Amino acid sequence: MSMQGDYHFVVYRGTFIQLPRRPTDSTPLALQRNIGALWVSAHDGDIKGFDWGITDDASFQNFMQLHGWVDVDSQTNGVAATATKVKVVIASEEQNEFFFPGFIDTHIHAPQYPNSGLFGSSTLLDWLETYTFPVESGFGTQPTPGSKQEQKPEEAPISALHIYDQVVSRTLSHGTTCASYFATIHVPATNALAVLCHKRGQRAFIGRVCMDNPDFCPEYYKDLSAEDSLAATRDTIEFIHGLDPKGRLVKPIVTPRFAPTCSRHALTWLGELASSFTPPLHIQTHIAENKNEVALVRELFPEAESYAAVYDRHNLLTPRTILAHAVHLSEAERDLVKSREAKISHCPTSNAALGSGIAPVRAYLDKGITVGLGTDVSGGYSPSILEAARQACLSSRLLGHVKDFVDGSPAAGGKDEGREKLSVAESLYLATRGGAAVVGMEEKLGGFEVGMAFDAQLVQLGNARMGGLSPLMVNGDVPAGVLKGQDGPVGNVDIFGTETWEEKVQKWHWSGDDRNVRAVWVRGRLVHQRE
Amino acid sequence: MSMQGDYHFVVYRGTFIQLPRRPTDSTPLALQRNIGALWVSAHDGDIKGFDWGITDDASFQNFMQLHGWVDVDSQTNGVAATATKVKVVIASEEQNEFFFPGFIDTHIHAPQYPNSGLFGSSTLLDWLETYTFPVESGFGTQPTPGSKQEQKPEEAPISALHIYDQVVSRTLSHGTTCASYFATIHVPATNALAVLCHKRGQRAFIGRVCMDNPDFCPEYYKDLSAEDSLAATRDTIEFIHGLDPKGRLVKPIVTPRFAPTCSRHALTWLGELASSFTPPLHIQTHIAENKNEVALVRELFPEAESYAAVYDRHNLLTPRTILAHAVHLSEAERDLVKSREAKISHCPTSNAALGSGIAPVRAYLDKGITVGLGTDVSGGYSPSILEAARQACLSSRLLGHVKDFVDGSPAAGGKDEGREKLSVAESLYLATRGGAAVVGMEEKLGGFEVGMAFDAQLVQLGNARMGGLSPLMVNGDVPAGVLKGQDGPVGNVDIFGTETWEEKVQKWHWSGDDRNVRAVWVRGRLVHQRE
Repeated sequence: MSMQGDYHFVVYRGTFIQLPRRPTDSTPLALQRNIGALWVSAHDGDIKGFDWGITDDASFQNFMQLHGWVDVDSQTNGVAATATKVKVVIASEEQNEFFFPGFIDTHIHAPQYPNSGLFGSSTLLDWLETYTFPVESGFGTQPTPGSKQEQKPEEAPISALHIYDQVVSRTLSHGTTCASYFATIHVPATNALAVLCHKRGQRAFIGRVCMDNPDFCPEYYKDLSAEDSLAATRDTIEFIHGLDPKGRLVKPIVTPRFAPTCSRHALTWLGELASSFTPPLHIQTHIAENKNEVALVRELFPEAESYAAVYDRHNLLTPRTILAHAVHLSEAERDLVKSREAKISHCPTSNAALGSGIAPVRAYLDKGITVGLGTDVSGGYSPSILEAARQACLSSRLLGHVKDFVDGSPAAGGKDEGREKLSVAESLYLATRGGAAVVGMEEKLGGFEVGMAFDAQLVQLGNARMGGLSPLMVNGDVPAGVLKGQDGPVGNVDIFGTETWEEKVQKWHWSGDDRNVRAVWVRGRLVHQRE
Repeated sequence: MSMQGDYHFVVYRGTFIQLPRRPTDSTPLALQRNIGALWVSAHDGDIKGFDWGITDDASFQNFMQLHGWVDVDSQTNGVAATATKVKVVIASEEQNEFFFPGFIDTHIHAPQYPNSGLFGSSTLLDWLETYTFPVESGFGTQPTPGSKQEQKPEEAPISALHIYDQVVSRTLSHGTTCASYFATIHVPATNALAVLCHKRGQRAFIGRVCMDNPDFCPEYYKDLSAEDSLAATRDTIEFIHGLDPKGRLVKPIVTPRFAPTCSRHALTWLGELASSFTPPLHIQTHIAENKNEVALVRELFPEAESYAAVYDRHNLLTPRTILAHAVHLSEAERDLVKSREAKISHCPTSNAALGSGIAPVRAYLDKGITVGLGTDVSGGYSPSILEAARQACLSSRLLGHVKDFVDGSPAAGGKDEGREKLSVAESLYLATRGGAAVVGMEEKLGGFEVGMAFDAQLVQLGNARMGGLSPLMVNGDVPAGVLKGQDGPVGNVDIFGTETWEEKVQKWHWSGDDRNVRAVWVRGRLVHQRE
């Protein structure tokens, strides 16, 4: 199923589920389902058309004939020489399969992956010191004065390469077609992450982490100066631009770790660096994840009115900026973020795990701020955006109980009671369309419109197929459940046959995992297939 | 590996991980690891001894000889006729396998399983009406005046039998060796659940649900009267006592659904019924899950000082009572629960999903109240107690942000800051030892002491085995990650080889699923094996 096969299009046939392009204010966001065929150019991986009138094999054959297409896998003698070869990929109705837009992880720290699940009872600042800086420091050698880091990815430690390779494997296997990665301060390993994503076919933003404030960063893991931070960042940008000149798959992203790790010089220069390109580069950083962090920023940057203002003073709050977390933003900061059109990466798994709090997502959406989801590995323990979507729903359901929660929570019993809750459709919107908008690619990613890239996953729920003998009649020690059935459920999703299609999607949302991801495509290229 | 095999003991060899018998106040609860062999009677499934001095094959052979044992699977000619045959089961060190006590689910509604993941944005009371009562009503026919329900499990609808069979399959596959089930009001289906658990070998408490209050229960699904509720409950108790006279595996449990569904007569009679047996029967119900529910109980039972007092007035608050949820208990109620030695089933997955709030588990533990975990399927979307353990940790980390949180949250920066957080060891304690105490079987379940039943799971994490060629050297479209390796990780747990054993357990806790449950035993009988 390579893009470079001897065919012109890939025709995907079956059920397509997605979220509408933009949430509407008046009606609740609803899942959209279409059944039919959608075709993708084997040349550029873009969606070229669809036909939702196909209901059965006969109408499909008719559709193929009308287009003058022949299925390359069922080609027989006697086909007209003028026929265009296409490949057909089918989502099985019987197996409850459907195509779904690929997930977009708007915030993930690739080098922290080996620490997934290791955080104890720490909170942000001690977690960084105890768990994070030590693992990240292993991705290269601490720069020494006067030395310059090599660009070559081969210079990265082999353990770093394997970890990065595994991160790409895992995120792809969970249906993540696009990720905005924080790497480390090391140029070779950062470039290696770009090479791996490019080679494996995952769409990615690759950020070399900038951290030059010696008062906050550990001696063994920091940029030596603002100048070094800038120079090393430039080096990775240059390398990535060389690797993928048109940025079709991999792009650099300017990455001041967060305000406390950066000198004012570094912040200023990184802001200038991003805007020196045409179009300006994307920027990613953290904001207001934790209350102690907010207090620390206030102390470190007394000249700024707020945490968001720190970034704004250095021209880092732009329409191309991804702000991770945003758990504790003041109203003034929300206004500032909105006015600058900066984007928010909501990382509920991490925010719960590190006890950071619950971001008021509904309030942000109501304000018109763009929000997507991030796994924040390894503050978040899971590389799965589906898990992040679940946790986004769960957190939103607990938000009404939170101390400083004000938005979207009118008096109990009022018509807006419970408005803070995110629905399954909304969390899946954040995971796809929302993420696409956060990385500035809402015209290209997140759905199945013509002209969009085919970045998608084939979800398989399987089929419980109960019936037949009463289980009371089954003897012996062997478990008798339908789990044993050859044609049973896939993973933990149990479909009993009484569900509506919306309920099947809800079951996937709550109980699905990587077992349900049968295949993943990016730009029409098959980049993962379940074994 | 049947208990009825031609051997006297099963010798389990490898790593055993458990929690200590009782949490100590002075030091943090820590995971315990032992390496060696432990033997279980093939006759009664009890642990008869262990030897933690076995470090290698030589010491194991020595151990076998000293006991006069021969491995039934490697038996050769020339074995002395006096040798005792044993079966040997090995947890592979290389595959990061270990034996762990079986999970105990102290609160699960078996008939609601088909609704897993279907709850929308509902909260308790509307969820019951919209999702729960309709599915439960399908497990039999609504009683009619003057009729008496048959006891025969075969009378249950075949769809009900299949659902119950699947619930048992799923919970076993997730390592649940003991569950306290709510069934429905229907006698045949309730009895069928008991038969299925007994047949499949899962330890279970089986509760026919009592709900006779016509003002709360729907017309289509309710007991016709307190008398009917009592009579039908008696019928299931009689049946279950007949099925398993010594209660070795399956026991009845008196189950008033919750105060609002029950008349005062029913509550009184159920309390009397439970205490009429020697020893008294177990009791399970719900308490203070949701604020609207608490207000409703206050309205319905003006004579009682509190929700807990309602149960206490009817002698339903006993040392053998499991109270599910307990999210919103007043201080006076906590005192009452403690003084009656009633137990709490903490259901964090459900409490987040239905937006019920966060139970103050640390406060309960500090008070000396016994707490275990429940999945609360399908208020909880997952039948996995490991998922409940994760959510218990996550919820506890958000508890400090909750409005009415007082306990365990002294001034920020104080020595007790963050005390509300449950550690991985603590959540696994709740999942095993805690659950055992909640069902009153702490002397028999939850650990690997001599005299305990061998209710256990074999956890397999696998091995990432990274190394070899640099992934940068790998060409082609095929994913190159270590996921491809034949000897790779199991499920989503990635072990990089740098972890301590405690960290491996933490990784399992946060990223593990049923794929990591290689085998499950109850009373020494193999009841589940991963395919």
